[in-house]
Amino acid sequence: MAFPGERGAYSEEAAVAYFSVNIDTVPCRTVSQVFWKVENSDVGYGVVPVENSTEGGVNETYDLLLETELRVSGEVNLRIIHCLISHHNRKIEDLKVIYSHPQALAQCRRFLDKLSCELVPTFDTAGSVKMIKEEELVDAGAIASERSAQIYAMDILAKGIEDSPTNNTRFLVLSHNDSQPTGKDKCSVIFSTKHAPGALYNALREFALRKINLTMIVSRPTKMIPWEYNFYVDFDGHQSSKVVQECLTSLANHTTFLKVLGSYSGSQDS
Amino acid sequence: MAFPGERGAYSEEAAVAYFSVNIDTVPCRTVSQVFWKVENSDVGYGVVPVENSTEGGVNETYDLLLETELRVSGEVNLRIIHCLISHHNRKIEDLKVIYSHPQALAQCRRFLDKLSCELVPTFDTAGSVKMIKEEELVDAGAIASERSAQIYAMDILAKGIEDSPTNNTRFLVLSHNDSQPTGKDKCSVIFSTKHAPGALYNALREFALRKINLTMIVSRPTKMIPWEYNFYVDFDGHQSSKVVQECLTSLANHTTFLKVLGSYSGSQDS
Repeated sequence: MAFPGERGAYSEEAAVAYFSVNIDTVPCRTVSQVFWKVENSDVGYGVVPVENSTEGGVNETYDLLLETELRVSGEVNLRIIHCLISHHNRKIEDLKVIYSHPQALAQCRRFLDKLSCELVPTFDTAGSVKMIKEEELVDAGAIASERSAQIYAMDILAKGIEDSPTNNTRFLVLSHNDSQPTGKDKCSVIFSTKHAPGALYNALREFALRKINLTMIVSRPTKMIPWEYNFYVDFDGHQSSKVVQECLTSLANHTTFLKVLGSYSGSQDS
Repeated sequence: MAFPGERGAYSEEAAVAYFSVNIDTVPCRTVSQVFWKVENSDVGYGVVPVENSTEGGVNETYDLLLETELRVSGEVNLRIIHCLISHHNRKIEDLKVIYSHPQALAQCRRFLDKLSCELVPTFDTAGSVKMIKEEELVDAGAIASERSAQIYAMDILAKGIEDSPTNNTRFLVLSHNDSQPTGKDKCSVIFSTKHAPGALYNALREFALRKINLTMIVSRPTKMIPWEYNFYVDFDGHQSSKVVQECLTSLANHTTFLKVLGSYSGSQDS
C-alpha cells in the first residue's frame, strides 16, 4: 500500500489501521505519486488524505480524484494527535524554528501563538522530523505524530497540541476494484451543474426525495471556467442498490458532468 | 487600506484596483492582522483574498469571516499573472530553488514540473522576492507579480507562467459600514444546517423558489463537531431588497446558524 510522506506519516498510520494487520507500506513523495503507483499496479492499494475536520479539504486529492480511473474502495477516519518533536535534552524554550506541513501548523495555531518561534511550512510532517534530525538543526522542532518520534528516535516535548479536541483526518483507500456492499456503505460522486438559478438545488432534490443522507459536500472550481464548480458529494448507500441507482440516473439529468468514484464500507472512527 | 503581504502583493493590487485612485496601503503580516486593524479602526478598509478560480478557497479568510463583526462592503476580481523573478543576469537554468506561496506554486504546476528546481513554500509571493533579494540568494527565484519585480528592482525571467489562462483571485473589501444598493449587487451569508437528509436541500429551496442565483457555495468544517459544515453562499441581490429579506427570514427556519456578512456591488473582472 502506497502512502504520501515519509515513514511515520499520518497516512501510513491510516494504512495500518485500515488493514489491521502488518502490510508492506511504500512511502511516496506526493499524493499524485500514490495515485500513479496504484494506476500502474506497482502496488495494490493507495491511501490518501481527503479532508481534515478542522482545516477542510485536501485540494490536491480532490483534483486527482477528478481524473483518475481508480476506484475509491475504502475510508479511514484517524484521530490526529500532534506532537512537538525535537532532539534529546531540548526544551520548548530552546526552539527558534518549528517545521511542519501547513495544515499541521494551522491545526496547532493556538499552541504556536504562545511561542515566539519562526514557523516554516514544509511538504510533510514526519519528513520534518527526519530533516531536523539528519541536518542536525539543534534549535529546531517539528510537528508530527508520536510514531514519527519513535521511528527517528527523537523526543516529544509536547503531545496533543492541536487546537481542536476532535481533530480527525479522513483518508480514502484507492484500488482497481469496487468494494462489495456491507450494509453500512457510503458512495462518493463528483458532479457539476449548469450555472443557473436552482441548478444545485435541483440536483440535491434527487437525494432528498429518496431520503438519502449526504455525509459530505465540497465545492471546487472546475479550472475550465472561472467560478464554475464541481461538487464532491458523499452519501449513505452503495451504488449497487436500486435506490442509489435510480438516484444517480435522475441526477444525470441535472448535471453537465457526473462521475461515480466508488462505494465502500463507512469507517468507524479509529 | 490594509492588505496581507509585503509591498507588491496581489492583495495590494486589488486594493488599488478597488479605489481606482491613489490610496494609502498598509502591509500586514497575515490575513488575521488585516481583520484586526480594521476592527480596531487603525485603517478604514481591509482587502483579503477569499477564493482563487483554480485553487479554491482561502481557509483562513473563511474562518475569520465567521467570527468578525466587520461588514463585507465590496469585492474585486483580479486576473493573476504570475512571473518567475530573480536577480539581474540570471537565467532560468541557473536557478536551484524557487520560493513562493503554496497557492502560487500550485497554480504554476505545469511550468514548474519542467524545471528541476527545489520548490519551497513561503507565506507570501512578494515577500519571497524581497527575501531572495535581501538575503542575496543568487541561485533562487520567486514567483510573484510583475509589480513586485519593479518594487524590488529584480528581473522577470518568465511571465504568465500560471497553468490556467483564466486564473483569477477574488478579494473581499472589509469595513465597518454596509454598502448602499447599486442595482447590480451581491450578498454573502454563512449558514449551517442540521445533519439530516435533505437539510441543505431545504435551505437552498428558499433561493430556488425566488429564482435567486447563487454565485458561490463553499463548505467548511464547523470545527465544533467533526464532519458538520458551515456553508458560505454568495448570491445576486442586496439584503435591503424585499425578496432577499423574505428569503433570509425563511432560510433561518432551516438553519441552526445564519450570519449575513454584507451586500456590495458585484465587481467587473479587472
